[in-house]
Amino acid sequence: MLRNIRLTVSYDGTDYHGFQSQPGTDRTIQGQLEKAIHKLTGEAHRVIGSGRTDAGVHARGQVVNVHTSSPIPISRWAIALNSVLPDDIVITQADEVSAQFHARKSARSKTYRYTINNNRFPDVLARRTQYHVPVALMQEPMERALECLIGEHDFTSFCSVKSTQISHVRTIYDAKLVTEEEGLYHIYITGNGFLYNMVRIIAGTIIEVGLGKRTVEQVRSLLVLKDRTQAGVTAPPHGLVLWQVDYDESYA
Amino acid sequence: MLRNIRLTVSYDGTDYHGFQSQPGTDRTIQGQLEKAIHKLTGEAHRVIGSGRTDAGVHARGQVVNVHTSSPIPISRWAIALNSVLPDDIVITQADEVSAQFHARKSARSKTYRYTINNNRFPDVLARRTQYHVPVALMQEPMERALECLIGEHDFTSFCSVKSTQISHVRTIYDAKLVTEEEGLYHIYITGNGFLYNMVRIIAGTIIEVGLGKRTVEQVRSLLVLKDRTQAGVTAPPHGLVLWQVDYDESYA
Repeated sequence: MLRNIRLTVSYDGTDYHGFQSQPGTDRTIQGQLEKAIHKLTGEAHRVIGSGRTDAGVHARGQVVNVHTSSPIPISRWAIALNSVLPDDIVITQADEVSAQFHARKSARSKTYRYTINNNRFPDVLARRTQYHVPVALMQEPMERALECLIGEHDFTSFCSVKSTQISHVRTIYDAKLVTEEEGLYHIYITGNGFLYNMVRIIAGTIIEVGLGKRTVEQVRSLLVLKDRTQAGVTAPPHGLVLWQVDYDESYA
Repeated sequence: MLRNIRLTVSYDGTDYHGFQSQPGTDRTIQGQLEKAIHKLTGEAHRVIGSGRTDAGVHARGQVVNVHTSSPIPISRWAIALNSVLPDDIVITQADEVSAQFHARKSARSKTYRYTINNNRFPDVLARRTQYHVPVALMQEPMERALECLIGEHDFTSFCSVKSTQISHVRTIYDAKLVTEEEGLYHIYITGNGFLYNMVRIIAGTIIEVGLGKRTVEQVRSLLVLKDRTQAGVTAPPHGLVLWQVDYDESYA
């Protein structure tokens, strides 16, 4: 009977080709995690992520699980893995969970954060995680446009045409703008699932609302139009952070 | 008659050999600034900094000045220079100042920030600007030890033995600990001048106070001992930011 280990993983995605392993490169988060676990346990088990993140996208609270027959106590896992991982990937928590726990299938909701720096010049010390938009944004219409997205909708307009999902219906539990300091906007979106590029297309569309290029009413109508070409551009990956993945308590 | 241009410069020092130009490398802040100004104006004037920063040290508000006969309007300088600078160096302000202004000689005071992450694991998205200390620090003695340093003192104990300065007497106007969020400590120190490695040795010593390895009274006595070997270790460069340089209004 293998143990099932859940890891909470943070990473700076700048120098990676995304979460998912790819042939021909080990510059993926999954590849680095599997390599580190192999060093620690001698085993070559597959790491299961809560979902992929694109090239350049970061994570504060990505969740993965991996099966193992290693006897290493759970209290040692985070520190031991961090000692062999590169310094742009950090395990912040390790828990032993029941056999049924699956990082993707068991996920109840996910929260993403997209950060916009609306000051005249970029913040050089935070430039890897902020999309710099030097033209002044109007906050209030951005807030109302985000509110339109809350609920169960067909998000075809906010989804890459490369999506292979059969249904584009998803439920957004919360979508809000948080102003941390002068000119710094964080978009937080929580939902039961996200389509390919969905948060980045939402961010790109909301920014166009802030610039006065489209109205709140037009954003609302995108949910009915189901046409990707009518929504805004896909905002760049470096502003995006997979913030948190939530599960039922029962797995712990 | 040459114009005198004052630039406020922010940079991520991670990938640089410090502020000052060196033979054999263009990976210095001064070298990059001079290259960018040469591209913009065709001129090869020397950039004068408010002071050096060591390899790996960052700046939010470094100040430099440069003389030029270029007719480019002052309102264009910041954007034009940013377009030719690497993305880890950003000009945040450009002003035309009187001929007497000298970035180093005219400086009235400087403020440095040293950041310590005292949480169990490093914050991967801020790791380039935070020194991670995983063992719990006691905040109150750190605050009292910083207060001891305020005033005019001989800082020989807090200065690299490589210093070539004749006098090690400096005045600290303010030295305080600011807690931004859980486990995140910023040391802010403002003074009329700083010796070689001074802020990093102060930070290393204050951390030892927080760890209970030395007392506040021992820190006070270091000001009298004038012995570098009695102070704490030099904290690593990546936690340090040259935060702000202040000048008299009259130069503007």
